Amino acid sequence: MGKRNLKIKEEKDSGFSTVVSGRFTNKDGRYNVKKKGINILNRYSWYHTFLLLPRFKFIGVLVIAYIIANLIFASIYYAIGIEHLTGIDKSSPVQEFVDVFFFSAQTFTTVGYGRIAPVGALASFVATFEAFLGLLGFAIATGLFYGRFSRPRAYLKFSEIAVVAPYEEGTAIMFRVASYKNNMLSEAEVNITAAIEENIDGKLVSKFYQIEPTLKKINSFSLNWTLVHKIDSNSPFYGYTEEDFKNTDIELIIMIRAFDEIFANNVVQRTSYITSEIVYGARFLPMYHSSEDNKTTILDLDKIDDYQLVKI
Amino acid sequence: MGKRNLKIKEEKDSGFSTVVSGRFTNKDGRYNVKKKGINILNRYSWYHTFLLLPRFKFIGVLVIAYIIANLIFASIYYAIGIEHLTGIDKSSPVQEFVDVFFFSAQTFTTVGYGRIAPVGALASFVATFEAFLGLLGFAIATGLFYGRFSRPRAYLKFSEIAVVAPYEEGTAIMFRVASYKNNMLSEAEVNITAAIEENIDGKLVSKFYQIEPTLKKINSFSLNWTLVHKIDSNSPFYGYTEEDFKNTDIELIIMIRAFDEIFANNVVQRTSYITSEIVYGARFLPMYHSSEDNKTTILDLDKIDDYQLVKI
Amino acid sequence: MGKRNLKIKEEKDSGFSTVVSGRFTNKDGRYNVKKKGINILNRYSWYHTFLLLPRFKFIGVLVIAYIIANLIFASIYYAIGIEHLTGIDKSSPVQEFVDVFFFSAQTFTTVGYGRIAPVGALASFVATFEAFLGLLGFAIATGLFYGRFSRPRAYLKFSEIAVVAPYEEGTAIMFRVASYKNNMLSEAEVNITAAIEENIDGKLVSKFYQIEPTLKKINSFSLNWTLVHKIDSNSPFYGYTEEDFKNTDIELIIMIRAFDEIFANNVVQRTSYITSEIVYGARFLPMYHSSEDNKTTILDLDKIDDYQLVKI
Amino acid sequence: MGKRNLKIKEEKDSGFSTVVSGRFTNKDGRYNVKKKGINILNRYSWYHTFLLLPRFKFIGVLVIAYIIANLIFASIYYAIGIEHLTGIDKSSPVQEFVDVFFFSAQTFTTVGYGRIAPVGALASFVATFEAFLGLLGFAIATGLFYGRFSRPRAYLKFSEIAVVAPYEEGTAIMFRVASYKNNMLSEAEVNITAAIEENIDGKLVSKFYQIEPTLKKINSFSLNWTLVHKIDSNSPFYGYTEEDFKNTDIELIIMIRAFDEIFANNVVQRTSYITSEIVYGARFLPMYHSSEDNKTTILDLDKIDDYQLVKI
Repeated sequence: MGKRNLKIKEEKDSGFSTVVSGRFTNKDGRYNVKKKGINILNRYSWYHTFLLLPRFKFIGVLVIAYIIANLIFASIYYAIGIEHLTGIDKSSPVQEFVDVFFFSAQTFTTVGYGRIAPVGALASFVATFEAFLGLLGFAIATGLFYGRFSRPRAYLKFSEIAVVAPYEEGTAIMFRVASYKNNMLSEAEVNITAAIEENIDGKLVSKFYQIEPTLKKINSFSLNWTLVHKIDSNSPFYGYTEEDFKNTDIELIIMIRAFDEIFANNVVQRTSYITSEIVYGARFLPMYHSSEDNKTTILDLDKIDDYQLVKI
Repeated sequence: MGKRNLKIKEEKDSGFSTVVSGRFTNKDGRYNVKKKGINILNRYSWYHTFLLLPRFKFIGVLVIAYIIANLIFASIYYAIGIEHLTGIDKSSPVQEFVDVFFFSAQTFTTVGYGRIAPVGALASFVATFEAFLGLLGFAIATGLFYGRFSRPRAYLKFSEIAVVAPYEEGTAIMFRVASYKNNMLSEAEVNITAAIEENIDGKLVSKFYQIEPTLKKINSFSLNWTLVHKIDSNSPFYGYTEEDFKNTDIELIIMIRAFDEIFANNVVQRTSYITSEIVYGARFLPMYHSSEDNKTTILDLDKIDDYQLVKI
Repeated sequence: MGKRNLKIKEEKDSGFSTVVSGRFTNKDGRYNVKKKGINILNRYSWYHTFLLLPRFKFIGVLVIAYIIANLIFASIYYAIGIEHLTGIDKSSPVQEFVDVFFFSAQTFTTVGYGRIAPVGALASFVATFEAFLGLLGFAIATGLFYGRFSRPRAYLKFSEIAVVAPYEEGTAIMFRVASYKNNMLSEAEVNITAAIEENIDGKLVSKFYQIEPTLKKINSFSLNWTLVHKIDSNSPFYGYTEEDFKNTDIELIIMIRAFDEIFANNVVQRTSYITSEIVYGARFLPMYHSSEDNKTTILDLDKIDDYQLVKI
Repeated sequence: MGKRNLKIKEEKDSGFSTVVSGRFTNKDGRYNVKKKGINILNRYSWYHTFLLLPRFKFIGVLVIAYIIANLIFASIYYAIGIEHLTGIDKSSPVQEFVDVFFFSAQTFTTVGYGRIAPVGALASFVATFEAFLGLLGFAIATGLFYGRFSRPRAYLKFSEIAVVAPYEEGTAIMFRVASYKNNMLSEAEVNITAAIEENIDGKLVSKFYQIEPTLKKINSFSLNWTLVHKIDSNSPFYGYTEEDFKNTDIELIIMIRAFDEIFANNVVQRTSYITSEIVYGARFLPMYHSSEDNKTTILDLDKIDDYQLVKI
């Protein structure tokens, strides 16, 4: 339950609701909302789903789809009758099905060795259709692969915690962020919204405030970037004690937008810090230094969470 | 025939014409305009057409193109003479054509079992060309598949109707919208234009007005968004009675633009509300609630059109 | 040689040079500049070249590349010796080369019937490499096809001529433009620069002026758009007579930018009007009308150049 | 060690650190920063890496991957036993492995001549899996090819050096840039930051300043563009002598952003000039002229570095 800094204007256009419980934004930046209603098939964009699937699950889905497709077609060929396929090893029914299965795979992938080949209209027709389907299937897989790896992403690493640190004559809330891959970001801009639970006429309600950092934009995002929100009379946290920071439901919702110069596209990443992720009385330690030959700068990404406790 | 709020300035840059009848924008957001003149081949972008084709029609077009291509090539091989293909089953002319057709399919898909194979220059030449065409065909299909599923779309569901509801001391026009898929929208912005038919010197003419909502932009588009246009002295609807709303040709033309964070692209969706889609004296019912464990919010998309009648 | 409207400020940021002769922008919107120096291979982006190639030339380039690749590989197989290929028809040297050529094509497209197949390490090695190259070749073709048809284009048709027409109490320069395909444009914006040859201290020099249309932006680009530049005291053409318009080297350089809602991308198109393309004393005729059932609007693209002469 | 122009405000949002040695931006525009920490696999985006690989290295990587894949699969088939493959030439163990290797290649590329073909479940299973992997591999290659050649790039050539030249009554820093390919750029905008090493309380520290060119934006980027920063009292270089320019650690960090009209995308390119790349007392020579028929302009890219020494 936060106390209210009456000088500060509530923000109306956050897009979040004031009356719902739970975290607004998950740590990974996804909204904490579940949707129901509408047909489940219409509620999911399968393409968005495939884009966000972890790599091994994605490959797994492709492999399973390949096996299932071949099992289905093998069953169809088997039902039609193996006399419509030349070159089948007929030593046992299992062997027969195995050969039919591999014939299906050779058709689906368009390898078509020809050791086994269809004769007669029915088997030939199914094979014609299967080869077509196989090519379309790999066309879709090509698109999914490209969609996945060309998807513009920011590849930003945020510090796990935010700190309340001494700053100038007072204090400031700080967290930091660095780009951890070999991409090339510029013109980075931050947007910070604070959701603070307040007691309004006896009811706990979340209020939203725009949080101003000392630096809202940087031209070159080459090193780490420490975001600093000075707690002065324009801050909703003005007058907060250590106790207030520990006992109030706070959520800092962060969005960083930058321009990826290699992709020539804007990228966005989000995260949030809740009360338990804000350390009162701490200071981040430097995370970069000069190289030994003094010719370049080393950015040590493992140090992004390094901080020391300080007295405020 | 609307009465005129003389304080309000007409909007010049709507891009629509004042003298044409019929709806300006269809419910699905497409302009209600037909084009003629210019060669019909130049008047359609076949790529735009393929992007907008429903899924099953798209697959159907591919299947039909595949069959037609094979029929054409089969006829060519047949005309050249089946003696230029080895392995043809010559038991009957129909059987011959069937085998030639499947040879064509095996070439077009590059399966190439080899049970049937071309001998001699002519058949080989056609097969060489067909395999090339087949690969280009599937290259185009790959591009179309990717174009279709990577196309940035907003996936927004608008309420079927707009309402005139009590608001503060007066009334407001409201409608609502929610993103219904697992995409992730932020920085949504709305643009509303009203087309109102007015009697100018005895002629009915459509006038266009920029409609200001109380909130033009939201940072996070996680829940539903209720757009509210307060009917005050700055509104073209100032002084409208229930009768005016029923008897005037009104069209609210809506455009929402948002940023899809997964695609990292701007998306746009349009719709419109005409006189018969505006309910006078109604209020929308809430469409989200907390989950049972109080940890997340449930957005019920089936409730987007739920409203109750109220007295104004 | 234009006379100078001394109230008007020259534009510095046109990016064109004041001292060069000839049209600045070609009718199709390309800059009228030739580049030399730098290695010719580095001076062309082959991808930009392929994107802009007319459709039939593009297909032609692919076909020729396919034939050349097969001729090269056929020659290699032939040089290695046809005894390393099974199934070759050895009735004559020509027939041998033909068979080798078709074997190459069957390998390049990965059809691989197997009637002809490599035996021995050398021919097998070349075939292994050829199949690899074939697949990469079609991978590139797939990318080029997709790049070509997914390229965001405005598909705008400009009137061939601009007119000087009566407008309010004076005159205005007008031209018009319409989108002629089934794309869906919104938020169109125009930028007009006039290059006027002026006599500065006895030397003819091009001066650049920003030309203000009465409407710089439209929300919905559904019909045609007539651009109107009123010739008042803020215009560089203020005080121009019919003779001035005919005897001065004028170039109106036009750029229109719009948002394609289907592609969700900005598109741009340029054109220019030079002195001989400006008709003094003419008025455009309407190019749209209501459908017979009064429910939609018909835009007749063939009428975009229809005008009648008027007295000014 | 620069002297300080006290009228000029330091820039806070450059995003570079004030205390690190070495060049900030490399000549090719990449940040001069090395990253360590985090798992090396997570520190690289392999897609960004592949996009930036020189063309021949990229092809080389594909070829090597193809050979390795076939060696692995050939070993597996060999381990399973060549009796599970029909048509193998068993004249010697080497010959056997060679044939198995080529069988693998024929499967991976889906050529599948069928001269060699799998019999029995084990070899067939491996072949089934290999064909699947081959197709996915070429799907990825297709995506990489497309990603590489569709990547929006500015194709700008900067002059190797910047000059301090006479300008109006004083001097100016100038450098120039031209687009050297057949792309089509417009709405180019420049951003220049100067990093100047200054003596602050006895310590050498880099200070950052926003550098204002006389023209920050051009509409049409058709010829070369000479950027001019006038050294007046608003410049951090105000009062600098030739000695100051030679003895101070200066870095001019340049970013140009433009709109590529063919790709319909924004493109960005960077470079920087350090002290040793700034020539005091020089003037660029013209690099374009009219064609002989006076109908077009010739831009000679080889002259971009041509300058003559002048006395200041």
